[in-house]
Amino acid sequence: MRKLYYYQLCAFSRTALLALAEKKLDFSVEITKFWDRDSPLLELNSFGRLPVLIDLNGSVVSGIFAIVEYLEEVYDNVKLLEQSATHRAEARRIFQWFNEDFASEVTVPLVFEKDIKRYFQQSPSSSTLIKQIKVSMNAYLKQIEKFVERRNWLAGNTFSFADIAAAAHLSVVDYLGGVSWHQFQLVKEWYMRIKSRPSFRKLLTDRVPSLLPSSHYSDLDF
Amino acid sequence: MRKLYYYQLCAFSRTALLALAEKKLDFSVEITKFWDRDSPLLELNSFGRLPVLIDLNGSVVSGIFAIVEYLEEVYDNVKLLEQSATHRAEARRIFQWFNEDFASEVTVPLVFEKDIKRYFQQSPSSSTLIKQIKVSMNAYLKQIEKFVERRNWLAGNTFSFADIAAAAHLSVVDYLGGVSWHQFQLVKEWYMRIKSRPSFRKLLTDRVPSLLPSSHYSDLDF
Repeated sequence: MRKLYYYQLCAFSRTALLALAEKKLDFSVEITKFWDRDSPLLELNSFGRLPVLIDLNGSVVSGIFAIVEYLEEVYDNVKLLEQSATHRAEARRIFQWFNEDFASEVTVPLVFEKDIKRYFQQSPSSSTLIKQIKVSMNAYLKQIEKFVERRNWLAGNTFSFADIAAAAHLSVVDYLGGVSWHQFQLVKEWYMRIKSRPSFRKLLTDRVPSLLPSSHYSDLDF
Repeated sequence: MRKLYYYQLCAFSRTALLALAEKKLDFSVEITKFWDRDSPLLELNSFGRLPVLIDLNGSVVSGIFAIVEYLEEVYDNVKLLEQSATHRAEARRIFQWFNEDFASEVTVPLVFEKDIKRYFQQSPSSSTLIKQIKVSMNAYLKQIEKFVERRNWLAGNTFSFADIAAAAHLSVVDYLGGVSWHQFQLVKEWYMRIKSRPSFRKLLTDRVPSLLPSSHYSDLDF
Protein backbone atom coordinates (compact mmCIF):
# COMPACT_ATOMS: atom_id res chain seq x y z
CA MET A 1 0.00 0.00 0.00
CA ARG A 2 1.18 3.53 -0.73
CA LYS A 3 1.88 5.58 2.38
CA LEU A 4 1.58 9.32 2.86
CA TYR A 5 3.35 10.93 5.80
CA TYR A 6 0.87 13.57 6.76
CA TYR A 7 -0.18 16.03 9.41
CA GLN A 8 -3.85 16.99 9.62
CA LEU A 9 -3.33 20.76 9.66
CA CYS A 10 -0.39 20.80 7.26
CA ALA A 11 -1.69 22.34 4.03
CA PHE A 12 1.13 20.76 2.01
CA SER A 13 0.12 17.32 3.33
CA ARG A 14 -3.49 18.06 2.43
CA THR A 15 -2.45 19.06 -1.09
CA ALA A 16 -0.73 15.70 -1.56
CA LEU A 17 -3.72 13.83 -0.12
CA LEU A 18 -6.10 15.58 -2.51
CA ALA A 19 -3.85 14.88 -5.50
CA LEU A 20 -3.70 11.16 -4.59
CA ALA A 21 -7.46 11.00 -4.07
CA GLU A 22 -8.24 12.88 -7.31
CA LYS A 23 -6.13 10.30 -9.13
CA LYS A 24 -8.11 7.54 -7.37
CA LEU A 25 -4.98 5.95 -5.91
CA ASP A 26 -5.12 3.82 -2.77
CA PHE A 27 -2.97 5.00 0.10
CA SER A 28 -2.77 4.99 3.86
CA VAL A 29 -1.95 7.99 5.97
CA GLU A 30 0.75 8.09 8.65
CA ILE A 31 0.10 10.99 11.00
CA THR A 32 3.47 12.70 11.49
CA LYS A 33 4.22 15.42 14.00
CA PHE A 34 6.72 17.25 11.82
CA TRP A 35 8.03 19.37 14.69
CA ASP A 36 8.89 16.31 16.77
CA ARG A 37 12.50 15.19 16.51
CA ASP A 38 11.49 11.63 17.28
CA SER A 39 9.27 11.39 14.21
CA PRO A 40 10.57 9.28 11.30
CA LEU A 41 10.42 12.32 9.04
CA LEU A 42 14.12 13.25 9.02
CA GLU A 43 15.08 9.72 7.99
CA LEU A 44 12.78 9.92 4.99
CA ASN A 45 13.44 13.52 3.98
CA SER A 46 16.72 15.03 5.17
CA PHE A 47 15.13 18.47 4.92
CA GLY A 48 12.52 17.52 7.53
CA ARG A 49 9.57 18.59 5.44
CA LEU A 50 6.14 17.11 5.00
CA PRO A 51 4.63 15.54 2.99
CA VAL A 52 6.53 12.39 2.05
CA LEU A 53 5.01 9.75 -0.21
CA ILE A 54 6.19 6.14 -0.32
CA ASP A 55 4.96 4.70 -3.58
CA LEU A 56 4.13 1.03 -4.28
CA ASN A 57 7.61 0.31 -5.66
CA GLY A 58 9.25 1.82 -2.57
CA SER A 59 10.12 5.16 -4.20
CA VAL A 60 10.33 7.95 -1.64
CA VAL A 61 9.04 11.27 -2.97
CA SER A 62 9.41 14.31 -0.71
CA GLY A 63 8.16 17.85 -0.83
CA ILE A 64 4.93 19.03 -2.34
CA PHE A 65 6.37 20.27 -5.64
CA ALA A 66 8.05 16.92 -6.28
CA ILE A 67 4.98 14.92 -5.22
CA VAL A 68 2.44 16.59 -7.52
CA GLU A 69 4.77 16.48 -10.52
CA TYR A 70 5.61 12.85 -9.77
CA LEU A 71 1.95 11.87 -9.53
CA GLU A 72 1.19 13.74 -12.75
CA GLU A 73 4.02 11.99 -14.58
CA VAL A 74 3.54 8.47 -13.23
CA TYR A 75 -0.26 8.28 -12.90
CA ASP A 76 -1.89 9.82 -15.92
CA ASN A 77 -5.31 8.18 -15.50
CA VAL A 78 -6.63 11.53 -14.28
CA LYS A 79 -4.88 14.69 -15.50
CA LEU A 80 -4.42 17.54 -13.04
CA LEU A 81 -2.74 19.75 -15.65
CA GLU A 82 -4.01 20.54 -19.13
CA GLN A 83 -1.96 19.80 -22.24
CA SER A 84 -1.23 23.43 -23.10
CA ALA A 85 2.16 24.65 -21.87
CA THR A 86 0.76 28.06 -20.92
CA HIS A 87 -2.07 26.58 -18.85
CA ARG A 88 0.43 24.34 -17.10
CA ALA A 89 2.61 27.38 -16.39
CA GLU A 90 -0.38 29.28 -15.00
CA ALA A 91 -1.33 26.38 -12.71
CA ARG A 92 2.26 26.19 -11.44
CA ARG A 93 2.43 29.96 -10.90
CA ILE A 94 -0.66 29.79 -8.67
CA PHE A 95 0.57 26.60 -7.01
CA GLN A 96 3.80 28.36 -6.00
CA TRP A 97 1.85 31.39 -4.78
CA PHE A 98 -0.16 29.27 -2.33
CA ASN A 99 2.69 27.08 -1.21
CA GLU A 100 5.09 29.98 -0.66
CA ASP A 101 3.38 33.37 -0.28
CA PHE A 102 0.03 32.31 1.18
CA ALA A 103 1.75 29.66 3.30
CA SER A 104 4.28 32.04 4.82
CA GLU A 105 1.81 34.87 5.45
CA VAL A 106 -1.27 32.90 6.45
CA THR A 107 -1.31 29.13 6.85
CA VAL A 108 2.01 28.47 8.55
CA PRO A 109 1.85 31.28 11.16
CA LEU A 110 -1.85 30.61 11.87
CA VAL A 111 -1.33 26.87 12.42
CA PHE A 112 1.67 27.64 14.59
CA GLU A 113 -0.28 30.10 16.74
CA LYS A 114 -3.38 27.99 17.16
CA ASP A 115 -2.08 24.44 17.10
CA ILE A 116 1.67 23.71 17.15
CA LYS A 117 2.45 26.27 19.87
CA ARG A 118 0.45 24.15 22.31
CA TYR A 119 3.16 21.49 22.18
CA PHE A 120 5.98 23.86 23.02
CA GLN A 121 4.85 26.41 25.53
CA GLN A 122 1.96 27.45 27.67
CA SER A 123 1.56 30.97 26.29
CA PRO A 124 -1.78 31.46 24.57
CA SER A 125 -1.94 32.34 20.90
CA SER A 126 -1.28 36.01 20.14
CA SER A 127 -4.51 37.81 19.25
CA THR A 128 -2.54 40.67 17.65
CA LEU A 129 -0.76 38.29 15.33
CA ILE A 130 -4.00 36.47 14.51
CA LYS A 131 -5.61 39.78 13.57
CA GLN A 132 -2.70 40.61 11.27
CA ILE A 133 -3.00 37.21 9.62
CA LYS A 134 -6.70 37.83 9.04
CA VAL A 135 -5.88 41.11 7.26
CA SER A 136 -3.40 39.28 5.00
CA MET A 137 -5.95 36.53 4.47
CA ASN A 138 -8.55 38.99 3.20
CA ALA A 139 -6.07 40.48 0.74
CA TYR A 140 -5.52 36.97 -0.63
CA LEU A 141 -9.26 36.29 -0.80
CA LYS A 142 -9.63 39.44 -2.92
CA GLN A 143 -7.01 38.15 -5.33
CA ILE A 144 -8.61 34.69 -5.46
CA GLU A 145 -11.94 36.37 -6.22
CA LYS A 146 -10.39 37.99 -9.31
CA PHE A 147 -9.46 34.56 -10.62
CA VAL A 148 -12.84 32.94 -10.05
CA GLU A 149 -14.68 35.95 -11.48
CA ARG A 150 -13.25 35.27 -14.91
CA ARG A 151 -12.41 31.59 -14.92
CA ASN A 152 -14.19 28.35 -14.18
CA TRP A 153 -11.27 27.12 -12.09
CA LEU A 154 -8.26 29.01 -10.74
CA ALA A 155 -5.86 28.39 -13.60
CA GLY A 156 -8.38 28.15 -16.45
CA ASN A 157 -11.26 26.00 -17.65
CA THR A 158 -10.26 22.79 -15.98
CA PHE A 159 -9.64 21.71 -12.43
CA SER A 160 -5.89 21.61 -11.77
CA PHE A 161 -3.42 21.33 -8.97
CA ALA A 162 -3.71 25.10 -8.51
CA ASP A 163 -7.25 24.46 -7.20
CA ILE A 164 -5.99 21.60 -5.08
CA ALA A 165 -3.33 23.71 -3.36
CA ALA A 166 -5.70 26.63 -2.88
CA ALA A 167 -8.43 24.44 -1.38
CA ALA A 168 -5.93 22.63 0.84
CA HIS A 169 -4.65 25.90 2.31
CA LEU A 170 -8.12 27.43 2.66
CA SER A 171 -9.43 24.27 4.31
CA VAL A 172 -6.78 24.54 7.03
CA VAL A 173 -7.62 28.20 7.64
CA ASP A 174 -11.32 27.30 7.62
CA TYR A 175 -10.75 24.57 10.23
CA LEU A 176 -9.31 27.33 12.44
CA GLY A 177 -12.27 29.63 11.71
CA GLY A 178 -10.26 32.19 9.78
CA VAL A 179 -12.10 32.59 6.45
CA SER A 180 -14.59 35.47 6.00
CA TRP A 181 -16.72 33.54 3.52
CA HIS A 182 -19.64 35.99 3.67
CA GLN A 183 -17.45 38.74 2.18
CA PHE A 184 -16.33 36.63 -0.77
CA GLN A 185 -19.34 34.92 -2.28
CA LEU A 186 -17.64 33.82 -5.52
CA VAL A 187 -14.74 32.30 -3.64
CA LYS A 188 -17.21 30.51 -1.40
CA GLU A 189 -19.01 29.05 -4.44
CA TRP A 190 -15.73 27.87 -5.93
CA TYR A 191 -14.77 26.30 -2.57
CA MET A 192 -18.18 24.61 -2.22
CA ARG A 193 -17.66 22.93 -5.58
CA ILE A 194 -14.33 21.51 -4.40
CA LYS A 195 -15.62 20.65 -0.95
CA SER A 196 -18.26 18.36 -2.45
CA ARG A 197 -15.75 16.37 -4.52
CA PRO A 198 -15.18 12.82 -3.22
CA SER A 199 -11.45 13.58 -2.82
CA PHE A 200 -12.29 16.08 -0.09
CA ARG A 201 -14.17 13.69 2.23
CA LYS A 202 -11.18 12.63 4.27
CA LEU A 203 -10.21 16.24 4.98
CA LEU A 204 -13.66 17.03 6.35
CA THR A 205 -13.35 14.32 9.00
CA ASP A 206 -9.76 15.19 9.94
CA ARG A 207 -9.36 16.34 13.53
CA VAL A 208 -6.39 17.28 15.72
CA PRO A 209 -6.56 16.59 19.47
CA SER A 210 -8.40 19.13 21.64
CA LEU A 211 -8.91 21.64 18.87
CA LEU A 212 -12.37 21.49 17.33
CA PRO A 213 -12.91 22.84 13.81
CA SER A 214 -15.15 25.84 13.13
CA SER A 215 -18.86 24.96 13.35
CA HIS A 216 -19.44 24.97 9.57
CA TYR A 217 -16.16 23.22 8.72
CA SER A 218 -17.67 19.91 7.56
CA ASP A 219 -20.90 21.29 6.09
CA LEU A 220 -21.04 21.04 2.33
CA ASP A 221 -23.73 23.72 2.31
CA PHE A 222 -22.39 26.34 4.73
CA MET B 1 13.56 37.60 -29.01
CA ARG B 2 12.71 35.96 -25.70
CA LYS B 3 12.83 38.29 -22.74
CA LEU B 4 13.67 37.51 -19.13
CA TYR B 5 12.61 39.99 -16.45
CA TYR B 6 15.54 39.72 -14.11
CA TYR B 7 17.34 41.30 -11.21
CA GLN B 8 21.09 40.73 -10.86
CA LEU B 9 21.06 39.63 -7.23
CA CYS B 10 17.77 37.71 -7.38
CA ALA B 11 18.68 34.03 -7.13
CA PHE B 12 15.38 32.99 -8.73
CA SER B 13 16.17 35.20 -11.75
CA ARG B 14 19.63 33.68 -11.93
CA THR B 15 18.13 30.18 -11.86
CA ALA B 16 15.94 31.02 -14.86
CA LEU B 17 18.88 32.59 -16.70
CA LEU B 18 21.02 29.50 -16.17
CA ALA B 19 18.22 27.20 -17.34
CA LEU B 20 17.77 29.26 -20.53
CA ALA B 21 21.51 29.33 -21.17
CA GLU B 22 21.95 25.60 -20.51
CA LYS B 23 19.25 24.98 -23.11
CA LYS B 24 21.14 27.28 -25.52
CA LEU B 25 18.14 29.53 -26.04
CA ASP B 26 18.56 33.16 -27.12
CA PHE B 27 17.11 35.74 -24.80
CA SER B 28 17.55 39.31 -23.66
CA VAL B 29 17.49 40.42 -20.06
CA GLU B 30 15.32 43.24 -18.71
CA ILE B 31 16.72 44.45 -15.40
CA THR B 32 13.73 44.77 -13.07
CA LYS B 33 13.77 46.35 -9.63
CA PHE B 34 11.18 44.02 -8.14
CA TRP B 35 10.66 46.20 -5.05
CA ASP B 36 9.79 49.24 -7.18
CA ARG B 37 6.07 49.78 -7.67
CA ASP B 38 6.75 51.55 -10.96
CA SER B 39 8.37 48.47 -12.48
CA PRO B 40 6.33 46.58 -15.11
CA LEU B 41 6.46 43.46 -12.94
CA LEU B 42 2.95 43.60 -11.45
CA GLU B 43 1.41 43.89 -14.90
CA LEU B 44 3.15 40.72 -16.00
CA ASN B 45 2.79 38.69 -12.82
CA SER B 46 -0.02 39.73 -10.48
CA PHE B 47 1.92 38.19 -7.59
CA GLY B 48 4.81 40.64 -8.17
CA ARG B 49 7.46 37.95 -8.27
CA LEU B 50 10.54 37.58 -10.40
CA PRO B 51 11.49 36.02 -12.72
CA VAL B 52 9.07 36.38 -15.63
CA LEU B 53 9.84 34.92 -19.05
CA ILE B 54 8.21 36.12 -22.27
CA ASP B 55 8.68 33.37 -24.80
CA LEU B 56 8.93 33.79 -28.60
CA ASN B 57 5.19 33.16 -29.08
CA GLY B 58 4.31 35.77 -26.47
CA SER B 59 3.59 33.28 -23.67
CA VAL B 60 4.17 34.81 -20.26
CA VAL B 61 5.61 32.35 -17.75
CA SER B 62 6.01 33.53 -14.16
CA GLY B 63 7.65 32.11 -11.09
CA ILE B 64 10.71 29.93 -10.99
CA PHE B 65 8.88 26.61 -10.55
CA ALA B 66 6.71 27.30 -13.62
CA ILE B 67 9.65 28.54 -15.70
CA VAL B 68 11.94 25.55 -15.25
CA GLU B 69 9.13 23.05 -15.84
CA TYR B 70 7.97 25.03 -18.88
CA LEU B 71 11.47 25.10 -20.37
CA GLU B 72 11.90 21.39 -19.70
CA GLU B 73 8.59 20.57 -21.41
CA VAL B 74 8.86 22.91 -24.39
CA TYR B 75 12.62 22.81 -25.14
CA ASP B 76 13.88 19.28 -24.86
CA ASN B 77 17.09 19.78 -26.86
CA VAL B 78 19.02 19.68 -23.58
CA LYS B 79 17.49 17.74 -20.69
CA LEU B 80 17.81 19.18 -17.19
CA LEU B 81 16.02 16.24 -15.60
CA GLU B 82 16.74 12.56 -16.09
CA GLN B 83 14.14 10.13 -17.38
CA SER B 84 13.72 8.26 -14.10
CA ALA B 85 10.77 9.44 -12.01
CA THR B 86 12.71 9.06 -8.77
CA HIS B 87 15.66 11.13 -10.03
CA ARG B 88 13.24 13.80 -11.18
CA ALA B 89 11.60 13.76 -7.74
CA GLU B 90 14.99 14.09 -6.06
CA ALA B 91 15.95 17.06 -8.26
CA ARG B 92 12.64 18.76 -7.44
CA ARG B 93 13.03 18.08 -3.71
CA ILE B 94 16.42 19.84 -3.73
CA PHE B 95 15.11 22.58 -6.03
CA GLN B 96 12.34 23.36 -3.51
CA TRP B 97 14.84 23.29 -0.64
CA PHE B 98 16.96 26.03 -2.25
CA ASN B 99 14.09 28.13 -3.48
CA GLU B 100 12.20 28.01 -0.18
CA ASP B 101 14.36 27.08 2.82
CA PHE B 102 17.75 28.37 1.68
CA ALA B 103 16.10 31.43 0.13
CA SER B 104 14.20 32.41 3.26
CA GLU B 105 17.07 31.77 5.67
CA VAL B 106 20.01 32.97 3.59
CA THR B 107 19.65 34.55 0.15
CA VAL B 108 16.60 36.78 0.62
CA PRO B 109 17.56 38.31 4.00
CA LEU B 110 21.22 38.72 2.94
CA VAL B 111 20.36 40.51 -0.31
CA PHE B 112 17.88 42.67 1.57
CA GLU B 113 20.46 43.66 4.18
CA LYS B 114 23.32 44.34 1.79
CA ASP B 115 21.58 45.59 -1.34
CA ILE B 116 17.83 46.35 -1.36
CA LYS B 117 17.87 48.16 1.99
CA ARG B 118 20.00 50.89 0.37
CA TYR B 119 17.00 51.94 -1.71
CA PHE B 120 14.69 52.34 1.26
CA GLN B 121 16.55 53.74 4.19
CA GLN B 122 19.88 55.04 5.30
CA SER B 123 20.44 52.59 8.14
CA PRO B 124 23.47 50.38 7.53
CA SER B 125 23.09 46.63 7.23
CA SER B 126 22.78 44.82 10.56
CA SER B 127 26.00 42.99 11.43
CA THR B 128 24.17 40.83 13.99
CA LEU B 129 21.73 39.63 11.37
CA ILE B 130 24.50 39.04 8.85
CA LYS B 131 26.35 36.90 11.41
CA GLN B 132 23.20 34.83 12.00
CA ILE B 133 22.77 34.34 8.28
CA LYS B 134 26.38 33.12 8.05
CA VAL B 135 25.68 30.52 10.73
CA SER B 136 22.63 29.28 8.78
CA MET B 137 24.69 29.35 5.60
CA ASN B 138 27.32 27.06 7.09
CA ALA B 139 24.66 24.57 8.17
CA TYR B 140 23.44 24.49 4.57
CA LEU B 141 26.97 24.07 3.22
CA LYS B 142 27.38 21.03 5.48
CA GLN B 143 24.24 19.51 4.02
CA ILE B 144 25.34 20.29 0.45
CA GLU B 145 28.67 18.63 1.22
CA LYS B 146 26.85 15.40 2.09
CA PHE B 147 25.27 15.38 -1.36
CA VAL B 148 28.48 16.02 -3.29
CA GLU B 149 30.40 13.48 -1.20
CA ARG B 150 28.33 10.65 -2.61
CA ARG B 151 27.05 11.95 -5.92
CA ASN B 152 28.52 13.45 -9.06
CA TRP B 153 25.85 16.16 -9.09
CA LEU B 154 23.40 17.20 -6.39
CA ALA B 155 20.48 15.00 -7.42
CA GLY B 156 22.43 12.10 -8.93
CA ASN B 157 24.77 11.30 -11.78
CA THR B 158 23.68 14.02 -14.15
CA PHE B 159 23.55 17.80 -13.99
CA SER B 160 19.99 18.92 -13.24
CA PHE B 161 18.01 21.92 -12.22
CA ALA B 162 18.85 21.11 -8.61
CA ASP B 163 22.45 22.11 -9.43
CA ILE B 164 21.23 25.18 -11.27
CA ALA B 165 19.19 26.45 -8.32
CA ALA B 166 21.95 25.67 -5.84
CA ALA B 167 24.60 27.44 -7.92
CA ALA B 168 22.32 30.42 -8.54
CA HIS B 169 21.72 30.91 -4.81
CA LEU B 170 25.36 30.31 -3.86
CA SER B 171 26.54 32.71 -6.56
CA VAL B 172 24.44 35.50 -5.04
CA VAL B 173 25.83 34.80 -1.57
CA ASP B 174 29.33 34.62 -3.06
CA TYR B 175 28.88 38.01 -4.75
CA LEU B 176 28.19 39.36 -1.27
CA GLY B 177 31.24 37.60 0.18
CA GLY B 178 29.28 35.19 2.35
CA VAL B 179 30.55 31.72 1.42
CA SER B 180 33.25 30.04 3.56
CA TRP B 181 34.66 28.07 0.65
CA HIS B 182 37.86 27.06 2.49
CA GLN B 183 35.82 25.05 5.01
CA PHE B 184 33.94 23.11 2.34
CA GLN B 185 36.42 21.88 -0.23
CA LEU B 186 34.07 19.41 -1.93
CA VAL B 187 31.35 22.01 -2.31
CA LYS B 188 33.94 24.38 -3.74
CA GLU B 189 34.99 21.77 -6.32
CA TRP B 190 31.39 21.16 -7.33
CA TYR B 191 30.83 24.93 -7.63
CA MET B 192 34.01 25.39 -9.70
CA ARG B 193 32.70 22.83 -12.18
CA ILE B 194 29.48 24.80 -12.58
CA LYS B 195 31.24 28.17 -12.60
CA SER B 196 33.27 27.15 -15.64
CA ARG B 197 30.21 26.17 -17.71
CA PRO B 198 29.44 28.60 -20.55
CA SER B 199 25.94 29.20 -19.07
CA PHE B 200 27.56 30.86 -16.06
CA ARG B 201 29.50 33.55 -17.94
CA LYS B 202 26.78 36.19 -17.82
CA LEU B 203 26.41 35.81 -14.04
CA LEU B 204 30.12 36.42 -13.48
CA THR B 205 29.95 39.81 -15.19
CA ASP B 206 26.69 40.87 -13.48
CA ARG B 207 27.07 43.91 -11.25
CA VAL B 208 24.65 46.03 -9.22
CA PRO B 209 25.39 49.77 -8.79
CA SER B 210 27.89 50.76 -6.08
CA LEU B 211 28.21 47.28 -4.63
CA LEU B 212 31.29 45.45 -5.82
CA PRO B 213 31.38 41.65 -5.69
CA SER B 214 33.82 39.77 -3.45
CA SER B 215 37.39 39.80 -4.85
CA HIS B 216 37.30 36.16 -6.05
CA TYR B 217 33.74 36.35 -7.41
CA SER B 218 34.59 36.12 -11.11
CA ASP B 219 37.68 33.89 -10.82
CA LEU B 220 37.14 30.43 -12.20
CA ASP B 221 40.08 29.21 -10.12
CA PHE B 222 39.55 30.81 -6.73
